[in-house]
Amino acid sequence: MPTNEHSQSTVLVARHFDIDTRQEPVIFLRRDSAVARSEGFEALSRVNVASKHRSIIATLVIVGEDLLQPGHAGLSDAARHLLDSHEGDELVLSYPRPVKSLSYLRSKIYGNPLSAQAFQAIMRDIVDGRYMDVHLSAFITACANGRLSGDEISLLTEAMVDAGERLHWPGTPIVDKHCIGGLPGNRTTPVVVAIAVARGLTMPKTSSRAITSPSGTADTMETLAPVDLDLATMRRVVEREGGCIAWGGSVSLSPADDILIRVERALNIDSEGQLIASVLSKKIAAGSTHVVIDIPVGPTAKVRDPAAADALAAQLKAVGHQLGLEICIAVSDGSQPVGRGIGPALEARDVLAVLQNQAGAPADLRQRSLELAGLLLETAGVADPGLGFEAAERTLDDGSAWSRFQAICEAQGGLSEPPRANYRYDVFAEHEGTVSGIDNRVLARVAKLAGAPNDKAAGLEMNVRLGNRVNAGDLLMVVHAESPGELDYSLHYMKSHRNPIEITQP
Amino acid sequence: MPTNEHSQSTVLVARHFDIDTRQEPVIFLRRDSAVARSEGFEALSRVNVASKHRSIIATLVIVGEDLLQPGHAGLSDAARHLLDSHEGDELVLSYPRPVKSLSYLRSKIYGNPLSAQAFQAIMRDIVDGRYMDVHLSAFITACANGRLSGDEISLLTEAMVDAGERLHWPGTPIVDKHCIGGLPGNRTTPVVVAIAVARGLTMPKTSSRAITSPSGTADTMETLAPVDLDLATMRRVVEREGGCIAWGGSVSLSPADDILIRVERALNIDSEGQLIASVLSKKIAAGSTHVVIDIPVGPTAKVRDPAAADALAAQLKAVGHQLGLEICIAVSDGSQPVGRGIGPALEARDVLAVLQNQAGAPADLRQRSLELAGLLLETAGVADPGLGFEAAERTLDDGSAWSRFQAICEAQGGLSEPPRANYRYDVFAEHEGTVSGIDNRVLARVAKLAGAPNDKAAGLEMNVRLGNRVNAGDLLMVVHAESPGELDYSLHYMKSHRNPIEITQP
Repeated sequence: MPTNEHSQSTVLVARHFDIDTRQEPVIFLRRDSAVARSEGFEALSRVNVASKHRSIIATLVIVGEDLLQPGHAGLSDAARHLLDSHEGDELVLSYPRPVKSLSYLRSKIYGNPLSAQAFQAIMRDIVDGRYMDVHLSAFITACANGRLSGDEISLLTEAMVDAGERLHWPGTPIVDKHCIGGLPGNRTTPVVVAIAVARGLTMPKTSSRAITSPSGTADTMETLAPVDLDLATMRRVVEREGGCIAWGGSVSLSPADDILIRVERALNIDSEGQLIASVLSKKIAAGSTHVVIDIPVGPTAKVRDPAAADALAAQLKAVGHQLGLEICIAVSDGSQPVGRGIGPALEARDVLAVLQNQAGAPADLRQRSLELAGLLLETAGVADPGLGFEAAERTLDDGSAWSRFQAICEAQGGLSEPPRANYRYDVFAEHEGTVSGIDNRVLARVAKLAGAPNDKAAGLEMNVRLGNRVNAGDLLMVVHAESPGELDYSLHYMKSHRNPIEITQP
Repeated sequence: MPTNEHSQSTVLVARHFDIDTRQEPVIFLRRDSAVARSEGFEALSRVNVASKHRSIIATLVIVGEDLLQPGHAGLSDAARHLLDSHEGDELVLSYPRPVKSLSYLRSKIYGNPLSAQAFQAIMRDIVDGRYMDVHLSAFITACANGRLSGDEISLLTEAMVDAGERLHWPGTPIVDKHCIGGLPGNRTTPVVVAIAVARGLTMPKTSSRAITSPSGTADTMETLAPVDLDLATMRRVVEREGGCIAWGGSVSLSPADDILIRVERALNIDSEGQLIASVLSKKIAAGSTHVVIDIPVGPTAKVRDPAAADALAAQLKAVGHQLGLEICIAVSDGSQPVGRGIGPALEARDVLAVLQNQAGAPADLRQRSLELAGLLLETAGVADPGLGFEAAERTLDDGSAWSRFQAICEAQGGLSEPPRANYRYDVFAEHEGTVSGIDNRVLARVAKLAGAPNDKAAGLEMNVRLGNRVNAGDLLMVVHAESPGELDYSLHYMKSHRNPIEITQP
């Protein structure tokens, strides 16, 4: 019986294969290749591919003879990048080991609680690329709707932290903030970081891209400065400026989270246990000690009523406590979007307006940012209880937050101007009345169909807020898109649903 | 605001693109194409593609300039086939409508029961190719582990039937049999069909390919005769010969089932509600009125104890009753494999041996086939209660079952010889003793790693049964594979697990 790995491996020459497989590492083999035939690789969907430097699991795709030379293997961009492989390099193919943690996944599907070891094994296999989309989706679904206990959430969180890098900073406190999404345009993070850092706190902020929303903080921030910082760059920025606003995925903090989020986005779900593990694993991996968490509550926000917010707050605090994090919860009004923009670039303009103290800056975004920054200053002990808001306001008004924000952007690679969309559509009031309801979910859907967050300039620009009086023909909002097809698509959706802005006739 | 579909569509020229995307319909577009850029298709993962004849949803993949000419679009084999499109045909691309049934899927993930309308919408969207793998996997997981009520199983079953073709046959009874899998080598169907048809019954049998096992009846039967019959061919075969053994997937009976089974196979789960809907939807769509269902029970079979078998039997009968099916349950011994072969071709040899009354034919396979055929003859009223077994035995022994089987195979396209594998490995007893345990799950896993069911000749040939006395060096079983790589892979797995054949020393 053969016992070594080499009897199961084969050598081929690497070729770049220019097919966009998104983030999926793919290796392309000729249908007639001796390799595919004699080794029986064709029957498997995943193979081990090793370059000089690294080894990955890639999806195997068989191609016709006219697309590849004999003895060659094509690599997708993602595979080339992960392997650090160049044109003509030698590649060694072999069978991947069976994915043992899938038995834990099946156990969870069948309703059993998982152990620390099970979560550790699953998260490691996910990060190693051993899970296919069907496995990721089953894991997310099997853990949704309260199917994770509080203890399991803690174990999952730790496993997510352990499967990636973990930052350590000199001294404490290391502060952080997070908003439980669901409220379009609620982009307080850049302002809070600028204020906290200007007040001398250390705030190595990592943010997510959108899960089910038209923009995440990382998507918005990316229109102002590079956010794909590697660990060394992030460390340098924080050491120099006291803080940063980076995309969490590019620094390998809780990398399992980024993989799971891609699937949660496709499913358009965001379950409580996974949400808590996602938030807290990022904070712990970033080395944070004190975290303010904003939970907006409203009929069409992610959290719909105060009782649900309290339950979530209690679970966040309990899991945080188990894992050594000081957590301060702020429950806020989630009845309507914050600021005017919904979508990466449009939200970035609101952020700039607040930081620069522009006359027309959205008052609600300013107010919320100051409240959260104030809580953070108090929690971290640099403002006395009850005096945080005032301290934050002074820091914003005297321009020191704006200078610090510019410095951070420069350190991250340079401040840039958010892009503008070429295609717009104005939505007008059909009759006079009072704005009595705003459906955040429909607004988010329209912004996403218009192209956000992938198209940075796409989204919505709101011109009214709850309680505003309007006349027939008044501008309610503007849809922005980067292509006529997407503009059409979002308008088509809006026409076939009830108006997201409800106007009650007098 | 544009209101028609045409403003969102674009015309391209079809080209065959020789990349094996398995069953996934894919359209390839150039990265620099005006289409991808101006219409913003790049940001979407799925598009509507229409040919002269048909319209499908395809996955969009962007390729480099050297792989495709300007104005052309590449189609995968699956896309070409579904579109009935030829080289140079005109293709019209447009945005797909949002998949509305995903809101029902999310509701199910969050633990809510689904209505008839919800199941109908989900099954129709699945059959129309609107669900991605992540959605299919979430649906399966959300319905697993008792998360479907009895009523929901009935509604799901009906929705699966309604989403495909439904056969009608003159007269009743129309008989059928099914085995709840989990027992390697339990390939009674070809024998039962041959006997039932030889006794004058109508048995339009459709079978599945393997879900989590090394072979399904369709996989085994395919090594003896073509099973990819279209509806017209199946009807012709049944009208001429009284029965057939076809692959259910190729006749569009409960096509949603075949799509879901592909994902269940990747997850290696097979949950109760889905299992019942899968079995019964096929039977109802095939026009059956009387069905015998075999439930093997054993410690490593799919159903592990008599209580679980009774519960499953009760649910099958209840759902069957709601949907107008007469169901007869046979609970059988599932403690070890049936026959000698495990894997498509190896099992087919056992079937031939039984049908041809060969001296060395596996006695257990013969016995089980006769029991099930006997029950079927009784249920259908062509044998008196208690006399079915004898009637079946006479039909087998006098050669009329074998002649009828040959006639059916000829009608399906011709009887062929099952292939033999080029690579084998003999497993010997390490010490003397008695065979005291056989782990069906480990055996199935070894057979699958050896290449079954995709490699038809791959699998295991058992040389011992429970209770057999063996000496050190006696042959226990033979592993068959079509490539050295797969042989290695399965042996590697077997070496790293406990021996699937347990021998207790005297």
